[in-house]
Amino acid sequence: MNRRILLMSSSRKDTLGYLEHAGQQLHALLRNEPRKVVFVPFAGVTFSFDTYEGMVKPVFERLGYALESIHHADDPLRAIEQADAIAVGGGNTFALLDRLYRAGLVDAIRAKVAEGTPYVGWSAGCNVACPTIRTTNDMPIVQPPSLSAMGLVPFQINPHFVSGKPVGYNGESREERLAEFLHINAPEQVLALPEGTALHVTGERATVLGERPALVFESDGSTRSLPEGTTFDLDQVRGPAAGANGPAFAR
Amino acid sequence: MNRRILLMSSSRKDTLGYLEHAGQQLHALLRNEPRKVVFVPFAGVTFSFDTYEGMVKPVFERLGYALESIHHADDPLRAIEQADAIAVGGGNTFALLDRLYRAGLVDAIRAKVAEGTPYVGWSAGCNVACPTIRTTNDMPIVQPPSLSAMGLVPFQINPHFVSGKPVGYNGESREERLAEFLHINAPEQVLALPEGTALHVTGERATVLGERPALVFESDGSTRSLPEGTTFDLDQVRGPAAGANGPAFAR
Repeated sequence: MNRRILLMSSSRKDTLGYLEHAGQQLHALLRNEPRKVVFVPFAGVTFSFDTYEGMVKPVFERLGYALESIHHADDPLRAIEQADAIAVGGGNTFALLDRLYRAGLVDAIRAKVAEGTPYVGWSAGCNVACPTIRTTNDMPIVQPPSLSAMGLVPFQINPHFVSGKPVGYNGESREERLAEFLHINAPEQVLALPEGTALHVTGERATVLGERPALVFESDGSTRSLPEGTTFDLDQVRGPAAGANGPAFAR
Repeated sequence: MNRRILLMSSSRKDTLGYLEHAGQQLHALLRNEPRKVVFVPFAGVTFSFDTYEGMVKPVFERLGYALESIHHADDPLRAIEQADAIAVGGGNTFALLDRLYRAGLVDAIRAKVAEGTPYVGWSAGCNVACPTIRTTNDMPIVQPPSLSAMGLVPFQINPHFVSGKPVGYNGESREERLAEFLHINAPEQVLALPEGTALHVTGERATVLGERPALVFESDGSTRSLPEGTTFDLDQVRGPAAGANGPAFAR
């Protein structure tokens, strides 16, 4: 498959501004080619889609790429079909996936990316690129038709990965949450992306970008560290069984 | 309705041991009457149901209540029908709800509690007592048939409530997650329970137990503090619209 995909943990890294850390990562995907990016703002919940576009558009324009939000399109399906590139922003993953299904865009984006159209997603936009949204950190504020998502990559990613837990909090740490996922879904694995780190996929190969290593969590409790520049075949991280991303998984 | 329900934020408070803070809260529900409690361990994922029972049973026995886990029962439905009281423990809310549906216990527990059988739930066991699990903090590691839950109380509760976010983490704070929920589900409200705090429901009235106040989050962004001892009618906190907790919500 002729995939060109950039999956970023987060829109922010440390105290940098919105997508400020991501310039080189976006260029790695979009290759300084003149591209008109279609932006999907559906993960935004507490602010308007106009506001969201106003945050993202200047970042892409400064890098040399035109961008327009899909909420302006009379025919969103057609906007995806005609896109030079697709960007899906962060926010709430459940709201994003629900709105993607309602707009009929899940299959449309999947087909378009399979044809080779570049896709960039951060945070929630990274989650929906996985086979399912079962490794999101977000609150399930709405119920999408299914937790199955676009499956642009064949395994689950956990964005905003952070180790440990705040003092005085008896809820689960991220490692404990992932251990629960891995225990109940063995032998699946999960690729965790710390803030600022991204996965750049070209065809069947992926490369880790960003100074903090990505981590592969395995169901036996072990962890593999993938430092910046590590390249691997996509099938080296185990996703859900074939067919799980569809009616069978959705039950 | 003749309800007797205790919904606790957490199994632990600060550095106290398992349910160690909860003795008086459990007595408030079970009233020192000799009761055989049926325990539902289905939220446990990374350890066995036997192990889970081994953690909970001594706590209840020390307080004077017999307890047996439902995973020993040949007929779980019958075990619920014959229970003197029902206890549902914490862990992963999605795994818990999925297993409750698979065992056919969602309707059975709802009916039994409506008859006046005492119910205590902590953490995930608190989430499934709400109309839906849309305000859980847990990772959606499995997909239950629906996010609709038992609806033992008519509004959503957020357990393990903690304010703010860890330094260096750009994910959402709890307040931001709840703001997303309230924005997309207005005019619903959410009752947040800090660790150690519980809601004690008797009939149509609820009382806050525990030294940290419960908080009611409203869709206009305001917050109401309910200190220990505050008593209110259940219909004073707005839940999902009637009928939302059923096929209509499940879509």
